[in-house]
Amino acid sequence: MEAGSFVPAKWVPQMASTAEILETLLENPPSAPHGIAYNYLVPNIRGLENLIKIFQAKHAQNPTGQPTPPPSPHPEQSQGQDPITSTSNSTEVSLFAAATETFSQKNTNCSIAESMERCKPIMELAKQHNIRVRGYVSVALGCPYEGPDVDPHKVAEITATLLEIGCDEVSVADTTGMGTAPRTRKLLQTLKEAGILDEDLALHFHDTYGMALVNTVVGLEHGVRIFDSSVGGLGGCPYSKGATGNVATEDLLHLLHSLGCETGVDMVKMAEIGQWITAQLGRPNDSRAGKATLARLKDN
Amino acid sequence: MEAGSFVPAKWVPQMASTAEILETLLENPPSAPHGIAYNYLVPNIRGLENLIKIFQAKHAQNPTGQPTPPPSPHPEQSQGQDPITSTSNSTEVSLFAAATETFSQKNTNCSIAESMERCKPIMELAKQHNIRVRGYVSVALGCPYEGPDVDPHKVAEITATLLEIGCDEVSVADTTGMGTAPRTRKLLQTLKEAGILDEDLALHFHDTYGMALVNTVVGLEHGVRIFDSSVGGLGGCPYSKGATGNVATEDLLHLLHSLGCETGVDMVKMAEIGQWITAQLGRPNDSRAGKATLARLKDN
Repeated sequence: MEAGSFVPAKWVPQMASTAEILETLLENPPSAPHGIAYNYLVPNIRGLENLIKIFQAKHAQNPTGQPTPPPSPHPEQSQGQDPITSTSNSTEVSLFAAATETFSQKNTNCSIAESMERCKPIMELAKQHNIRVRGYVSVALGCPYEGPDVDPHKVAEITATLLEIGCDEVSVADTTGMGTAPRTRKLLQTLKEAGILDEDLALHFHDTYGMALVNTVVGLEHGVRIFDSSVGGLGGCPYSKGATGNVATEDLLHLLHSLGCETGVDMVKMAEIGQWITAQLGRPNDSRAGKATLARLKDN
Repeated sequence: MEAGSFVPAKWVPQMASTAEILETLLENPPSAPHGIAYNYLVPNIRGLENLIKIFQAKHAQNPTGQPTPPPSPHPEQSQGQDPITSTSNSTEVSLFAAATETFSQKNTNCSIAESMERCKPIMELAKQHNIRVRGYVSVALGCPYEGPDVDPHKVAEITATLLEIGCDEVSVADTTGMGTAPRTRKLLQTLKEAGILDEDLALHFHDTYGMALVNTVVGLEHGVRIFDSSVGGLGGCPYSKGATGNVATEDLLHLLHSLGCETGVDMVKMAEIGQWITAQLGRPNDSRAGKATLARLKDN
């Protein structure tokens, strides 16, 4: 579950209160359901350092009877003592890289190779604290600057590098929604040929052109089982104009259930959450299945 | 192209001006592109009689040098003389039946069997005038009263009957949008087992639950090549509460083009039409691909 992003507020003002969110989650830890981690995007080492500082400060205030150790260089020896390690099953950070040079320059002000170099110390620090790390490859199926024909071999190369430097999982993202079924299939085949396992992959579709669920079916058929989504279809990308949010969680759920997949998620409750949060934010509810599920309930 | 519906105005007030539309089309015939017919829904024999009267009145006013013959009982002998026959390549009527008894009663006030009996004289009159007839089977993948599990064998039986009594094509309609990929596949298999050919079928999806394009892919894979849609996702069904419009033409086009299908339709022009008509009607543009296509054009 994406909780926030430790990016400079001047880049993305919407993310300015991420520290506050983390503090609130640490003070009032919600009972995260099994398998759910709170995820924080960290574009640079400072982002991760800030996250760790907040953990350590909270732990110093309320050390639950244990002395606060410094970040351990040997996490395997300090299980249960490090303030982050001790909650690591519900905390995760994300790194990202772009699949095209132009998007990389515009989004992170450096080349793809430079961004991979920047990832290494972040990864090292995260591993010291036993924090799970997720990688993203943006614009993997279409770039707002370079167009739809992104080289799948480049995506495979970046994905492989992210896994090699230590990512626990890589989410291959169709940031612009330009992805089509044939190109999604081609990309997944290329990733497989590069030796990348389906279980190390997630797919991240935006429904900008209405193709997200069709491409999800291609991913499912290929063997991927992790799909990103956003309740009510909220979101977007400040670096990709006109991009709508991720595919709505409710639409994804309806598809998965319709295909007989077990998700452990209650469709009606998710539809209610989507209606509530979009109303709170004064934004349209962009989930077709969410709205239809609620309309049908009301009708009966 | 659905031009209107000759239903009593007290049933569906939105359709009250269909006669006017037909008159306008006859006075200022637009150059219908090859293969496009203007379609009028006729729920009963009176609807078709009204349509024919309008044709005959217009023809009497402007007989294009030919005497106006009475409706011919042997259309094959009067090609080019009958006022409707002479324009028959661009005029078509639709009949409809429902796949569940409850929907049939609520929608047409009669049983399924009775509605099939009512279709016969309409068909006979249409054939006298060489008018092409399209059949619809409503709620074929989910009924607002009986739920999602509509019997595919019942749909096959109704479809076969409509073809036997003379329909040139039958559109199997997921009026409620409850259709899923597995049930769409099962239905198409059942239709095939009943001896119905893919070329006699059209599929008609509503995107109420966001499944329309996924189900379209199932239809394409099965061999169907005719799919109904509505520009800007306009429409709905007054007899199926909460039902949204047909899948947007722009979304369907984007999918078909992404799969390499040739449609002969210009995506940008269709997106512009969708933006224009929804603005005229003061309704939201429900096409994701349409909006994204226009946003991208504006951006460049």
